Amino acid sequence: MGFPEVPQLNPGLDAITFMPADPLPSWNEGPTKQGILAFVARVTDETSPDFLPVAERIAVHDNDGTLWPENPMPFQAAFAIDELKRRIHVEPELTGDLMVQAALAGDLQELLKGDDFAGLMRILALTHAGMTTDDFRHAVESWLTTATHPRFGRPYDALTYQPMQELLDLLRAHDFKNFIVSGGGVDFMRVWVERVYGIPNEQVVGSVARTVFELRDDGPVLTKTLDHLFVNDREGKPVAIHHHIGRRPVVCCGNSDGDHAMLQYTTIKNPRPSMGILVHHTDDEREYAYDARTTSTGKLVEALKAAPERGWLVADMKQDWNTIFPNQ
Amino acid sequence: MGFPEVPQLNPGLDAITFMPADPLPSWNEGPTKQGILAFVARVTDETSPDFLPVAERIAVHDNDGTLWPENPMPFQAAFAIDELKRRIHVEPELTGDLMVQAALAGDLQELLKGDDFAGLMRILALTHAGMTTDDFRHAVESWLTTATHPRFGRPYDALTYQPMQELLDLLRAHDFKNFIVSGGGVDFMRVWVERVYGIPNEQVVGSVARTVFELRDDGPVLTKTLDHLFVNDREGKPVAIHHHIGRRPVVCCGNSDGDHAMLQYTTIKNPRPSMGILVHHTDDEREYAYDARTTSTGKLVEALKAAPERGWLVADMKQDWNTIFPNQ
Repeated sequence: MGFPEVPQLNPGLDAITFMPADPLPSWNEGPTKQGILAFVARVTDETSPDFLPVAERIAVHDNDGTLWPENPMPFQAAFAIDELKRRIHVEPELTGDLMVQAALAGDLQELLKGDDFAGLMRILALTHAGMTTDDFRHAVESWLTTATHPRFGRPYDALTYQPMQELLDLLRAHDFKNFIVSGGGVDFMRVWVERVYGIPNEQVVGSVARTVFELRDDGPVLTKTLDHLFVNDREGKPVAIHHHIGRRPVVCCGNSDGDHAMLQYTTIKNPRPSMGILVHHTDDEREYAYDARTTSTGKLVEALKAAPERGWLVADMKQDWNTIFPNQ
Repeated sequence: MGFPEVPQLNPGLDAITFMPADPLPSWNEGPTKQGILAFVARVTDETSPDFLPVAERIAVHDNDGTLWPENPMPFQAAFAIDELKRRIHVEPELTGDLMVQAALAGDLQELLKGDDFAGLMRILALTHAGMTTDDFRHAVESWLTTATHPRFGRPYDALTYQPMQELLDLLRAHDFKNFIVSGGGVDFMRVWVERVYGIPNEQVVGSVARTVFELRDDGPVLTKTLDHLFVNDREGKPVAIHHHIGRRPVVCCGNSDGDHAMLQYTTIKNPRPSMGILVHHTDDEREYAYDARTTSTGKLVEALKAAPERGWLVADMKQDWNTIFPNQ
């Protein structure tokens, strides 16, 4: 069965049949939408053998490529490059730095060369460290109010995926706790996730390095460093979930092989019922089609291959989503 | 004014005056109890200029010495020693290990010698690493059901402080989110905190080392290591609060100089109204009186000295608490 589209006289309830209005209107009918709705119904029905106590309703979501785009580059990289552009006005000597040149040219390949990622670390050191957490937050806030996406012309935080926002709402309405578990920096994400996704700061897990605490005359200060950098990707994701949440999730949404380990951790031999969802980037007209490329940073090859055996749902953007961004 | 003790015909409401029943019955009347009640009333009154939005109501609590005792040794150390006793039955060669001998003799001084804490690390390696997180959890669960405190003769988890349980309840009833921020191991605490304090796993911040993720034939497994050990104490506490919660707390409860930095972080030049509370161990008849000793691991000297200037409330156990443990 499906949830037929009916004119919504009464938002929330269909006045004629008293069935709930479609909670996922941006999703086309099909096995993925039905799989999501059936899972949520099954685990929240107290009479079902699969009923999940509220405390166990932990949902984890990757961010880049899952809740918002990661093209033409991860948005945090766009922030870093814009920061560098701002910085060279005050520190023109930075233009002599080869890694700064690579970053300004958008040459991410160059920055990611080598086992020690020296280029990336250099850019992070210039844009993500050596400042207080308050100063960093202000820099991100200011960037979000001025920068726009090169293709879509909107502020970056207006480019979340509407179908995923509906999924977050559906889960929240059924007492799931949504966590973001992203390779993005936790300080970068916490500037806007609460406003944009309704997810509080304490439910954001990301890449992180240590800060240093000091009590100065004008109050306590935390200064960002790159020490003990933890990159929250691949096998790091279940590790960070254990560290931060301390419980196996029952819902996991991802879009790349970087999310494969947390999909495994969520769904394989979990004594609780669980659901894995892969967002598959197949729509280069409305968004991007890139994840089948094995050279892509957001490649989805291994996890997509494993999906049928594991029972993971695939959200094919072209086929399953009738809307991509909010207010389109 | 106080909340007079009246016979409770209707739990929750005093039938005569319609004042709420005393939410802190184990606290004696006095400035500390009144300070707590006044703060909670002030920041949750929508008409008050000090009103705190629910999302900002973050309370952090140390555990050892704040929510339960830390004598004659931190309970996690008692667990480790009991584990060693169990292990030498199966691995008698361990009795030749000098650090194992020190631990079995309860000689914590010996274990804490040297800048590298080699003794402590050796004991942690034997009792807290090299096993899966599931096996570790079972070991702690099993210990809690069999071990009893040498002085009080109760299971360790029956020794939480009743007045602090009432404070946790009071805060929760006013939509505060309670977090534990303890030097204890996060995996050790999460075995029992939800049952004992009603605090979910994801609101527990503690000392932590990395785990390693593996997908084995029988499912995903996380193995504990001592790599990247982070000790959540002193200046580490505000660092971990920033990492885990991502927001300055407005309530902070601690009992030792190890909590001084997080009390500073919570209360000094915080644009939000805030409250700091120090649990002061002054009662050697009903509990222990030890924190004025500068040699104590739980010493409370600097923070107690700073309390009047900072406006931190002091919960003097002898004077302020009429009950120490539940069901006494």
